[in-house]
Amino acid sequence: MNVNGKPYRTIWLGRDGWSVEIIDQTKLPHSFEIATLRSVGDAAHAISTMQVRGAPLIGATAAYGTCLALREDASDEALDRARDELIATRPTAVNLRWALDEMAHAVRNLPRDARLQAAYARAAEICDQDVECCRSIGEQGLAIIEEHAARKNGEPVNVLTHCNAGWLATVDWGTATSPIYQAHSAGIPIQVWVDETRPRNQGAALTAFELGQENVPHTIIVDNAGGYLMQKGEVDLCIVGTDRTASNGDVANKIGTYLKALAAHDNGVPFYVALPHSTIDWSLNDGFEIPIEQRDADEITHMTGRLDDGEVVSVEIAAPGSPAANYAFDVTPARLVTGLITERGICEASHEGLLSLYPERGQP
Amino acid sequence: MNVNGKPYRTIWLGRDGWSVEIIDQTKLPHSFEIATLRSVGDAAHAISTMQVRGAPLIGATAAYGTCLALREDASDEALDRARDELIATRPTAVNLRWALDEMAHAVRNLPRDARLQAAYARAAEICDQDVECCRSIGEQGLAIIEEHAARKNGEPVNVLTHCNAGWLATVDWGTATSPIYQAHSAGIPIQVWVDETRPRNQGAALTAFELGQENVPHTIIVDNAGGYLMQKGEVDLCIVGTDRTASNGDVANKIGTYLKALAAHDNGVPFYVALPHSTIDWSLNDGFEIPIEQRDADEITHMTGRLDDGEVVSVEIAAPGSPAANYAFDVTPARLVTGLITERGICEASHEGLLSLYPERGQP
Repeated sequence: MNVNGKPYRTIWLGRDGWSVEIIDQTKLPHSFEIATLRSVGDAAHAISTMQVRGAPLIGATAAYGTCLALREDASDEALDRARDELIATRPTAVNLRWALDEMAHAVRNLPRDARLQAAYARAAEICDQDVECCRSIGEQGLAIIEEHAARKNGEPVNVLTHCNAGWLATVDWGTATSPIYQAHSAGIPIQVWVDETRPRNQGAALTAFELGQENVPHTIIVDNAGGYLMQKGEVDLCIVGTDRTASNGDVANKIGTYLKALAAHDNGVPFYVALPHSTIDWSLNDGFEIPIEQRDADEITHMTGRLDDGEVVSVEIAAPGSPAANYAFDVTPARLVTGLITERGICEASHEGLLSLYPERGQP
Repeated sequence: MNVNGKPYRTIWLGRDGWSVEIIDQTKLPHSFEIATLRSVGDAAHAISTMQVRGAPLIGATAAYGTCLALREDASDEALDRARDELIATRPTAVNLRWALDEMAHAVRNLPRDARLQAAYARAAEICDQDVECCRSIGEQGLAIIEEHAARKNGEPVNVLTHCNAGWLATVDWGTATSPIYQAHSAGIPIQVWVDETRPRNQGAALTAFELGQENVPHTIIVDNAGGYLMQKGEVDLCIVGTDRTASNGDVANKIGTYLKALAAHDNGVPFYVALPHSTIDWSLNDGFEIPIEQRDADEITHMTGRLDDGEVVSVEIAAPGSPAANYAFDVTPARLVTGLITERGICEASHEGLLSLYPERGQP
């Protein structure tokens, strides 16, 4: 998608052909900066500090992180070490494990001198496939938005989203935002309620930024406001992303998603979750088995922002000495999810629903 | 309650015997400052800028604001002008209207030269009655906490609260916090989950501050986290305040309260609302008739905090140019409320429940 009118992906190879460039998302929305990853350590750091974030982009970064590790040492041991280092960065998004499995599969049985090229090829493919998945998720979700638009008599379709499941969370297009971008491109009037998404404000900082760059009408709201807007009939549908979907259709996503799903259910507002296949954890029967990351309390007690003169500073916002607890995700039970929007189509949030789109997973 | 070990109310008369002193809550938690109100304009400004906030304290401030107006002009016209100026400050809390009605009733039929003294007397009485109401709410709510404690085998009772319905929202004790303070004083182990309460962070800034000053164990969480904690069994009960309660038991309270009530309902967690009689609007049959204040978008896009050197600054946190919408309250339907804790006892959130405690309101 576009930044200052220029198209970007969120991750790409540097001009040297081997280093990896990313948009440093910890700097947004205050400044747009590119960072370069030159080692697996750089990649692990980028994931754990959330320079890159979002389940699909975490996977893509881990894939390139594996390449950077193999560049220094193409042994099986180095591959294992890289996997250990990368998988330890963030526990909830299953795309991380998925991408590392894909990378191991791509290089494990090759002679050492063929591994690096194969790794870069597979990492590039993972990125391209993610773009294609997200584009396709957008086409599938567009049909839902079109249905709502048909009932709105030219009034905008109001979509609420939580956190950033935008193109910044993927390689391009986004998951939850892909239907929104495609609807906007198709000339369907659309307006997005952007949950600011405390504590890291991915909504106010990233989703609002990327929607603004694409001129999609949007309004930032606090995370507390979505229920009120639904009560007032100001939300036609919700679309969010997910960091891991259990095989029964339960979805782990950014903390607070569950509260919006409850409000949507209470008000008869459809609640959709958009995801590529790489986000499904077929090994889990139940979303409540998904490990939930706990992050530093400073993310709650401190806030980064711009002073009037443009300087970016961190300020402490809470009562001095009061402790804080920072749970990064919650689990929305499948019963609250209207449908899963995948690259293969839309299904019920259930084991049967998922198998209807991925029948190969039903094979013994 | 105590600040730095010294007992305070939130509003009191100055040494001159006529000016009104308040704790300037816009300065908390960064500094503890007293402000002096010398005119009805000062009082209206204090309410609208939220130097004072919380339904009962808004009422008390409006009462003293009326005194300050009468001090300059004791005519009926001045009384009406003061009422108009004060009632325009904030639309949702009904205590404002209640206190102004009480003040008018106290002075209207008196000769002009007797009005000022009567007004100050009634304002002082409103404050004292609020303290007594809140103390009594605490006694009533203490019984609920004791019941939970009896089942916890010495483990702390975990109470979640939203916004600040603490002593800073009243004249003393608080509404939602009064049972907490009384349980803590009684030696019952208690731990409070403090919703930070965006956008104005009354939880992280005020509730955490006052609990810390009273040494009540507490943990700040983002507003998004309460549902997760309830899913995990980490919340024994919720207690919140209210800015206006309709006669059917629907409660308007700080935006996001409804989401917590939904999560409590979904997880079988009791959800109590604590209020003095002055917060009940007997004229409304339904909470959805309560006017919901919309405040400045800057409260969402900007955040005030302390730099490392202690300087307090405002920073812009959202994507530049993105609009924001700032709804200050939502309505929690009575069906989601386990009980109303009032100074007269605990009742079902219903017209019948309220009439059982306030039978005089059932008279034709």
